[in-house]
Formats: sequence, structure tokens, C-alpha cells
Amino acid sequence: MQAVLDAILKRFVRYGRLTVRWPDGRLSAYAGTEPGPEAAMSLNDKATVRRLVLNPSLRFGECYMDGTLVPLDCTIYDLLDVIALNAVEGMAHHPFARFQTAWSTLRRRIDQYNPAARSQKNVAHHYDLNGRLYSLFLDRDRQYSCAYFPRGNETLEQAQAAKKRHIAAKLCLDRPGLEVLDIGSGWGGMALTLARDFGARVTGITLSQEQLAEARARAAAEGLQDRVTFELMDYRAVQKKFDRIVSVGMFEHVGVGHYAEFFKMVGRTLKPDGVALLHAIGRSDGPGSTNPWIAKYIFPGGYCPALSEVLPPIERSRLVATDIEILRLHYAETLRHWRRRFAANRDAIGALYDERFCRMFECYLAGSEVAFRREGHMIFQIQLAHVQTAVPLTRDYITEVERRVPSEHAAAK
Amino acid sequence: MQAVLDAILKRFVRYGRLTVRWPDGRLSAYAGTEPGPEAAMSLNDKATVRRLVLNPSLRFGECYMDGTLVPLDCTIYDLLDVIALNAVEGMAHHPFARFQTAWSTLRRRIDQYNPAARSQKNVAHHYDLNGRLYSLFLDRDRQYSCAYFPRGNETLEQAQAAKKRHIAAKLCLDRPGLEVLDIGSGWGGMALTLARDFGARVTGITLSQEQLAEARARAAAEGLQDRVTFELMDYRAVQKKFDRIVSVGMFEHVGVGHYAEFFKMVGRTLKPDGVALLHAIGRSDGPGSTNPWIAKYIFPGGYCPALSEVLPPIERSRLVATDIEILRLHYAETLRHWRRRFAANRDAIGALYDERFCRMFECYLAGSEVAFRREGHMIFQIQLAHVQTAVPLTRDYITEVERRVPSEHAAAK
Repeated sequence: MQAVLDAILKRFVRYGRLTVRWPDGRLSAYAGTEPGPEAAMSLNDKATVRRLVLNPSLRFGECYMDGTLVPLDCTIYDLLDVIALNAVEGMAHHPFARFQTAWSTLRRRIDQYNPAARSQKNVAHHYDLNGRLYSLFLDRDRQYSCAYFPRGNETLEQAQAAKKRHIAAKLCLDRPGLEVLDIGSGWGGMALTLARDFGARVTGITLSQEQLAEARARAAAEGLQDRVTFELMDYRAVQKKFDRIVSVGMFEHVGVGHYAEFFKMVGRTLKPDGVALLHAIGRSDGPGSTNPWIAKYIFPGGYCPALSEVLPPIERSRLVATDIEILRLHYAETLRHWRRRFAANRDAIGALYDERFCRMFECYLAGSEVAFRREGHMIFQIQLAHVQTAVPLTRDYITEVERRVPSEHAAAK
Repeated sequence: MQAVLDAILKRFVRYGRLTVRWPDGRLSAYAGTEPGPEAAMSLNDKATVRRLVLNPSLRFGECYMDGTLVPLDCTIYDLLDVIALNAVEGMAHHPFARFQTAWSTLRRRIDQYNPAARSQKNVAHHYDLNGRLYSLFLDRDRQYSCAYFPRGNETLEQAQAAKKRHIAAKLCLDRPGLEVLDIGSGWGGMALTLARDFGARVTGITLSQEQLAEARARAAAEGLQDRVTFELMDYRAVQKKFDRIVSVGMFEHVGVGHYAEFFKMVGRTLKPDGVALLHAIGRSDGPGSTNPWIAKYIFPGGYCPALSEVLPPIERSRLVATDIEILRLHYAETLRHWRRRFAANRDAIGALYDERFCRMFECYLAGSEVAFRREGHMIFQIQLAHVQTAVPLTRDYITEVERRVPSEHAAAK
């Protein structure tokens, strides 16, 4: 099998340089003809070599978790960076690329079949982890989604406050007392901000018991429980109507076969002159499928869609897209912050979870950052309404609100 | 046939009020239960009644052109407004709506088959009209596309200058001497502005002989002929590479079966760090078809797509959409200006073209405005690049450039 992997890597590495230490201790260097990052790994036993040959996209992460694939004088990020760059550029010219796309398009309908009961189980898998874990790498407000770096050099705290402000501006909260639905409310940071800084009355829904408890506790601690309520509820179960709807980093869990349901629900619960904002991870390169390691270990049932997959159900639901912003590299920066905080708190996290879990989480954070830097992942913010006149004529109001409510104000809270 | 049309209108009018004077002089009023605009028309002979029953979407405009369908104490705009409102609301609940969509999706592949030779013929049909006609309803710069009204009360001249500035800002013309391709350069206003106010070197291509001659004359008159060149060329024939590509109001003539070709051409001619901006009319309500009257008399081969039809070929071409702005109602305002100027210059236009032509043009301007106000038409501005880093991290640079180059400056030229 070593000869097979050697042959594969000789063809595969065209950018940068990858060095491999084989189980017998010998070293092979694979140098591309084009410039790129460098990294090295040790493959500690023959089983690891075999697993990588047979199913690299699943086994790479597993072997790293098991400690049989070990970065040498570099991090898991550096390894994933070389691999992703070569995979992306290689795939662009690969004769089987189209076939593979067709196959993955079929498979994902099954992988992403997420009725309410399964959605709850999928959410629990990741979000019901010990809350302290998240406090050890997220910002103080526990924003577990892409931050917004207007100048590029903000702290994570400032950038997360700027993100909430950017979204609040797009929600056109132009008078106090507006009823807002937050789909996928997490630990409550967005809902509390919209109530505290923008005078909204917010209902947050989540499927995570851990997040629900924390969010309710925070609302009570801030004395906002009369204006912010959190419920354990599936998005399909919402019946009330709202002036505004916001959803940040939840759409990734809906699944491609459920988009029609999702937008029908938005259309049904949004008042006639209402405004909604959907913030989610997308891919620039067209429909694809979720990496099998991510689907197995991190986000079962999850998928980051291409815009071409999101717009048809929007159009069929008779909602009108009134603006589509594409945030590029903001999530890469966010993940870099998280990865560094995770590394800085590695000992404290190691006291909560075992070494295999820690490596799994490192691989997930590094792989996600690489996906944004190398693989065309991005955030789309789609603003939706029933009527074209629900939002101002130009986008200038967004900057105006952002200027009126400085992010430092929100960050200081 | 009068009884049939009477029965249809009784069911059709649910908003506002439509009054009909039949060929025998009798009046019928169709009043909806919901509020809406009011209008009245005279149907002067039995043939008109029959034609409206058998093929209303084609014959309505034809009967108006022929002078056998005459607005009574109102304009053709008022008539189209009542009809469009009721058609849109009626279609939303019509059991055959889906079937009709499927049928029109098939048909439009044929209607919009636009190889180079046919494209040229289609363009000549509209754009090779007497240039003086356009000078009698467009702004001084002859911008024959949607203007941009940041405050909502700009003059047409100011709003067209603001449109060019808005697009220039999105093109990131951050250093002089950038090579820009303008696909569908019209009478040259955009190309001249990018050269004069932003220091670009522009190549404009058009398929209209009339527009080409006028654009070249203007470049010479302004002394810009060393920095702006215009060519009679199909978009598929471009070979050179450019730093920036802009296309305003041309994509509507490409045809849905040719989008892959169009974006492949953009990908092929845009330099690796380049930026492109596509500005075109779209529809919010999903794939549809071109109104048969418009296809026959105004824009043969033309189509305004849904975003869900534009994004798949973009994703397949490996271009990255870096921003999507949706300009709502700006074109309705633009068309209102054009319609009023057309009416004010009706005598001068009547000296160029006969009465039937004038009515055709009025019907086209009024129908287009109604499409934007009632039928979910909008402008999309899609910014494209090969790499996500080709444009700044946030959209704030757009406003900054707009502030630096006041629109009044450009409007004064």
C-alpha cells in the first residue's frame, strides 16, 4: 500500500511541498512545481497508510484523532492547507470531477434527511457539548458564527460585536418593540443584543438543551427576560407571526431537501411588511457534498449550499431577495482566532475532554479555516421580504446604522 | 366573443376597477373587492374583442398599436397597471400556473436561441432605430439602462451619473490605466465616464451600427479616442484579457441557453486578479418567459432571468460572485422619467416615426414600468472575480468612492 500512496502523492502534490515519514522511518518528499505551503507528517503504522489509500477524506481526520498520523514540525492546519490547495487545483482538471459531483448529489439527499427528531439529535451531537468547552475558544458573548472585520484588525470581541451590528442594521429595526424571531438562537447573544441595543422583542428558538439553559440564564441575569424568550423548538413548529426574522449559522443544519420547508416557514411567519436575514455558510463552486469526516464527527446532517441551491426555493416561496452580501475570508479570520484560543487553552480543554476529542476539534477548526481560505467557502447574508418596498431604496442605511451604533459599545457589554 | 371576454373579466378583476366600452357603445364596469388602480378602455370593433380573448398577452399591445383598443380618460400605463396587478395576484393562486411555467420554460430555449448572426439582427431591430428618437426621451448621456436614485428625488441626469459612479466604485478602479472591457457599450456613456473620471483604458463592444458610430464620434469629440475604443463585436469573439469587465443592460439579450458561453467568456478574458460587474434586469419570482408582445415588437431573443438561472453557470465557470445587489424600483423610476419625456416630446417623435410606432413605444415603456412596480422585476448587479481576495473585505469601499466622486460632477459633463 505504501507504493500506492507514494504513486498517488507524486501525482497529487503540484503546489508547495509535502514530506511523509513512512512507518519504517524513511522519508519521502513530494515537491510541486508551483509555489505553495509546506508541511510534513508521520504515518506511524501500515494500517494508517492503508486507510489513507482506501478512503482519504474520512480517514485522514480519523488517523489524526487516533494519533497514528502526526504532523512533523508543523500543525494540522499546515497539513490540511497543502492538501486542500492541491485537491482544489487538481479537481479543477480531473476527468471524473463531474461524475463525482453527480454521485455526491444523490447521496446527500439521504445524508441530509433531517426530520424534526433527527434534527434534534444532530444538534445535540455538537451543541450539547460541555458549555465550558465553548467558553474556552469563543468570544465572551459566545458567538459561534462568522465575525465581521470591517478594518481587518479587530479583536474577536470587536468583530463579533460588529457582526451583530451589521445584521441588526440589515434587519431595519427602525422602531422599538418590533417582534423578532431568531431561528437557531445559540447561547442567546444575538437575541440579547437586539433587545438591549435595538429595542426589539425577541423570541429565540434552539434545539440544544445546553444552549437553551444558558441563554435563559443570561436573559435573566441581564434583566431582559420580559423582552427576550427562548424556546426549545424546531423551526417547522413556529406558528406566530413576526416583524423580523433572523437566522445566523443555523441554515447549515437544515439539509438540502428541506429548503422549501424552511423558506415556506419564513414566508408564513413573516408579516407582510417584514424583513428577514439569513446568514449561513455557502460554497462558491456549485453544489457539492459534506466532507464525510465532518458529517460523521462534527455536523451530522449538515451541508453548506451553493447560492444556486438556495435561490430556487426562495423564488418558489414567493419571498423576494432584496440583498445578497457575500462575506469572504471573514470566517477564515474568525476560525484563526478560535484555533489560537483553543491552542492557548489546550490544557484546560484537556481537563474536560480526552486527547482524541481535542485532536478532533483541532482538525475541525483547522479544516474549516482551510475551507474558507482555499476551497471557496463563504458566508452569504440573504435579506428577504414579501415586498420590494420593505427595505430602503439603497443599501446606504446599513452603513448609517453601523455608524450610529458603534461596535465598541456592543463589545463592551 | 363579447360574452366570453365579459365572463373572463368578471373573474379576472379582483383589485381596483376596469371599465370597458364595447363596440356597440355599451359600458361594463368590473370592480374588484380589493383596492387598486382604476382604468377604462374602449374596444372599437368586434375583431379586437376576439383577438383579446384568443391571445391577450400578444394582442393587447397590438390592438393598442392599431388604435382599436383606446384608453378612456386614462393612459396606457393606467390600463397596464390594473391588468398587471390582477394578473400577478391571480396567477399566484391559479391551478395551471405550474403547467404554464413548464411550457414556457421549454419554449424559451427556442425563442432565445441567439447565435452571433441572430444576436446582431435582434440588436439592430431595437438599437439601430433613429438615434434622434433616443435623444428625445433618454438623459443627455443616453444611458439606456436603470438609473440609481440614492435619495429618491434626483433628476434623471443626476441619477444616471450616480448609476455610473456606483458601478465604477464596484469595479475597484483603484489605479489609473486599468484595461476595461465594456460588453454592450451602447452610445458609449459608461466607457467615456470610466476613461474620463476614473482613468481607465476602455474597449467598448456593441452589435449596433448606429450606437457604434455615435460612440466613436463622442470619443473623438471629447479627445478620448486614445483611451477609449469601440468595436462592432459579438461578446463571444473577444480574445484579449482585461483587468475589469463591465456589462450594463446587455445580458438581457444573451438568452438563457447561452449563459454558460457568456460566463466562460468572462472567465477567459478576465485577468486572474480582475473584477467584473454584471448589471441586468431580473425577475424575483423564478424562471419565466418573455411576454410575447415584447419578444415580437421590442426585444426579439430577449429574456430577464431569475437569479436561480444566472448562478449555476457562474458557479460552473469557476467565477466567484463577490457581491449581489438587488436594485428595486430604481428602474420603475427611470422608466417613469423616460415615459414623461417621451410624452413631452410626442410631436417631435411623431415627425420621426408614425403613430403606430409611437403607440408601440409608449406601450413598451409603460409595460416595463409596470413590470418593475407590480411584477417583481428588479436589477441585479453581480460582482464577479476569479479569487475572493480581488475586492476589499467589506462593501464599505463602494460608499467611499461614491463620496469621493460626487455624482453632480459627472452629471455636469
